[in-house]
Amino acid sequence: MSGNSVTMSTYKDTDVKNSYNYDTDDDEHIEYDVCRIKRDWDTGEEGSLIGRGILDEMENEAQHIPFFTKLFTLSQVVGILSVVLVGVWCGYFRGGFAWFNDPTLQFNWHPFLMTLGLVFFYANGAMIYRGFRSEKKKKLKILHMLIQLSAFIFSIVGLVAVFDFHNKSHPPIPNMYSLHSWVGLCTVILFACQWLVGLLTFLFPGLRPSVRAAYLPIHQFFGLFIFVGAVASCLLGLTEKAIFSIKPKYSALPTEGILVNVIGLALILFGGLVVYLVSHTKFRRQTTEDEVLLTDTVLE
Amino acid sequence: MSGNSVTMSTYKDTDVKNSYNYDTDDDEHIEYDVCRIKRDWDTGEEGSLIGRGILDEMENEAQHIPFFTKLFTLSQVVGILSVVLVGVWCGYFRGGFAWFNDPTLQFNWHPFLMTLGLVFFYANGAMIYRGFRSEKKKKLKILHMLIQLSAFIFSIVGLVAVFDFHNKSHPPIPNMYSLHSWVGLCTVILFACQWLVGLLTFLFPGLRPSVRAAYLPIHQFFGLFIFVGAVASCLLGLTEKAIFSIKPKYSALPTEGILVNVIGLALILFGGLVVYLVSHTKFRRQTTEDEVLLTDTVLE
Repeated sequence: MSGNSVTMSTYKDTDVKNSYNYDTDDDEHIEYDVCRIKRDWDTGEEGSLIGRGILDEMENEAQHIPFFTKLFTLSQVVGILSVVLVGVWCGYFRGGFAWFNDPTLQFNWHPFLMTLGLVFFYANGAMIYRGFRSEKKKKLKILHMLIQLSAFIFSIVGLVAVFDFHNKSHPPIPNMYSLHSWVGLCTVILFACQWLVGLLTFLFPGLRPSVRAAYLPIHQFFGLFIFVGAVASCLLGLTEKAIFSIKPKYSALPTEGILVNVIGLALILFGGLVVYLVSHTKFRRQTTEDEVLLTDTVLE
Repeated sequence: MSGNSVTMSTYKDTDVKNSYNYDTDDDEHIEYDVCRIKRDWDTGEEGSLIGRGILDEMENEAQHIPFFTKLFTLSQVVGILSVVLVGVWCGYFRGGFAWFNDPTLQFNWHPFLMTLGLVFFYANGAMIYRGFRSEKKKKLKILHMLIQLSAFIFSIVGLVAVFDFHNKSHPPIPNMYSLHSWVGLCTVILFACQWLVGLLTFLFPGLRPSVRAAYLPIHQFFGLFIFVGAVASCLLGLTEKAIFSIKPKYSALPTEGILVNVIGLALILFGGLVVYLVSHTKFRRQTTEDEVLLTDTVLE
């Protein structure tokens, strides 16, 4: 093992801060810096730390995009398949959809809207920074907020459907007794808090960049925690409904039983793909070409 | 915005590789490098990149340890509470434990051993690199493998208990029809594959460091995926058993129903804490004092 030492010459904290155009709308800069320096280190060439870093970063990002695109496409296929299978289950095996005339059919909106809103829309809201990586951050933040708002509205309508079904049945079915209801309601309440705190912190009024940067990992963690809670709630709901309603019985595993189990597995696969795509650091959104040009100008 | 540029003088790829004592048993060095350089950047001082980085890292690690210790302690309290509550549920509300004489009581080993093995032991096996951060990596790897082996053995005995219960009941209860059984068995099979591939890759025979480094993030991702699958299986199992067995009925929410729901929430809280502790980069195990001394010697 040779003993060559590595030194970094004359840089000051203020140089580092001034040399880079901090866009206050971009909360990912902190992690971004780490990746940029990592890549400078890897290239082992002389030159501007920042200029070289950004070029490497763009190559590095380009290298991961095909794999990202494949997994992202797979996640969309599995996600749409899950929603369609829930639609087939409720629409065909459970008798279809209604709202005012038949509480049993009104219930069917519950699994469908929760899967569509709290799982599929929610996941796509979370993945938007990865899927549309060349769009402006500000635009994506507003789109993220709006998609999650739609997800939340679907969930609320889905909750109204199940409470109505319970209350209008003869005799009425008790509300909020099962583990499914406890986990599901906690998930929706957490989602409401997450949405509101996210709006106040990142968009309106928008807090100081240091506060946003400190809150971002918490927002990301709870974002995934709520998503996993939503998938778990779906599995619990599928199990409950299968035990209560499948004829002749769930344990005989008729076609409907197999369908319910397949929906459960599809949701788990979708959940695993989404968590991987969102949490894997290599797939994080990085600088756009405009930002690079702007930064290079500043550096020159 | 001023235009100061930052430059890094005369380092070569070979210098970087030679200057650091790569321990082939430490698969975390790749991530470790990134963190070290990040911290050098933050300090903004002149001096040896590596020497300065390691000092900062130790300070940085020390800074996060109290928070880690609090959350780790909380996770142990919640984890032990979950296992004890499952013990109380099976031992008191479900009539206690037996093996050969009574299939109904033999079943009770199933929830208890799955929670103890696949959730509590498994989680502690996963967290061992964080909890015992000053131990040698090689020792922790063997301990990790042995704890996960115990977790696997508990799971297998737990599975034998439920299959015996189903087969010995009058009339026999069908096996493998429910979503719980599908998700649970997939989880245990994935766990077996994960354990075996982990053993072959990291310990015996132990593959090339580059292969180990490439496999490590996959092992970590599937490690958490299996853990979340185990917690989800527990929730599904609790729901099934509550619906089938609670008297007069689950929907009346007697004490046993509340206990089952509380166990479910405790398992979710435990799951969230464990995933956070294992995945949060600030809590990762870093260099020991011995390693620092060795590295400093090499640098001098």
